[in-house]
Amino acid sequence: MNFSSRKIELAVEEISRLPGIGKKTALRLALHLLRRPAGQTESLSAALLDLRNNTTFCSECHTISDTEICSICSSPKRDKSIVCIVEDVRDVMAIENTGGYSGVYHVLGGLISPMDGIGPSDLTIDALIDKMKTGEVKEVVFALNTTMEGDTTNFYLYRKIKDFGASLTTIARGIAVGDELEFADEVTLGRSIQHRIPYEQSLPQ
Amino acid sequence: MNFSSRKIELAVEEISRLPGIGKKTALRLALHLLRRPAGQTESLSAALLDLRNNTTFCSECHTISDTEICSICSSPKRDKSIVCIVEDVRDVMAIENTGGYSGVYHVLGGLISPMDGIGPSDLTIDALIDKMKTGEVKEVVFALNTTMEGDTTNFYLYRKIKDFGASLTTIARGIAVGDELEFADEVTLGRSIQHRIPYEQSLPQ
Repeated sequence: MNFSSRKIELAVEEISRLPGIGKKTALRLALHLLRRPAGQTESLSAALLDLRNNTTFCSECHTISDTEICSICSSPKRDKSIVCIVEDVRDVMAIENTGGYSGVYHVLGGLISPMDGIGPSDLTIDALIDKMKTGEVKEVVFALNTTMEGDTTNFYLYRKIKDFGASLTTIARGIAVGDELEFADEVTLGRSIQHRIPYEQSLPQ
Repeated sequence: MNFSSRKIELAVEEISRLPGIGKKTALRLALHLLRRPAGQTESLSAALLDLRNNTTFCSECHTISDTEICSICSSPKRDKSIVCIVEDVRDVMAIENTGGYSGVYHVLGGLISPMDGIGPSDLTIDALIDKMKTGEVKEVVFALNTTMEGDTTNFYLYRKIKDFGASLTTIARGIAVGDELEFADEVTLGRSIQHRIPYEQSLPQ
């Protein structure tokens, strides 16, 4: 693109480094900020810098937290013997929104992905193993996405923690509630049939 | 959404004030920045602040420019008697990319839109009228988008500048090159037939 200003070119370059934002969208966002009061750009910049430089992670579950131990890990109502392994804080938020989980989490901070240069040592796997060594964990629930990276990470973790005596489970995969069978992909439908459950368990409780 | 950190909530709030970005996308972008080196967030913030606080507009055509007069207005190759009226710098860039226009521009900085509280005085219309008063403009090309706001602005400008003796033209609307007739909307196809041109003019020159 042929920019009339070096400043706007630089801003577009920086904005378009964000995932899913191309040059055209970046230009639209930059022009939007130019039309709004300067205060909006200032508070956006300040919020981003504050997030990046001052965010802390919960020392127990590694989720993003403002306090040393997050509100979930410090709650007396949560069952610390059940640990749900998730990729990042978005998954924690998604599961929390269901209101159906009373255990705690362990946030890996990513998935093993040799293509992106992310190995086991870049994730919080050592902390998970330390947690397993205490012997207080009775169940580990794998809740990683079913991508190639997710499956690789699942299997790596499985081999690392299978001998600690905790039961290892994974969240159920199947046809989403409300979805029609005929439009489901075969893998999902196949798993859905293979892992069928007693009818009584599917009734609202 | 149920955020585990006030900092991330604030960042998501600020990012999602940008057009076309919802809370979920904002969270994805915030988490992306958290995973990258702090330098990326710093250069993004700096570029946005620099753009917002230090950008200047060309004193002749009002496009975004690093200099008092932009490279288009200061070029001796451009014909200053032809002025193309556009909404913002994106339209200047789009027309410049065609390489088929040798006149200059006049950037309005928006469109008249009572719904958004944008009136004629918020745009660079007075500067356009001053330009017309010099008598040096021989042709004005309207190149605003054909939305309700664009048409309103076109008509407002038409009434303001029609008596200055310049010829007033508008860019051609019709079926896009390569598009199929049967899929075109009626209004476009109708205009395409109504404003047909001599065949010889359509040949590559």
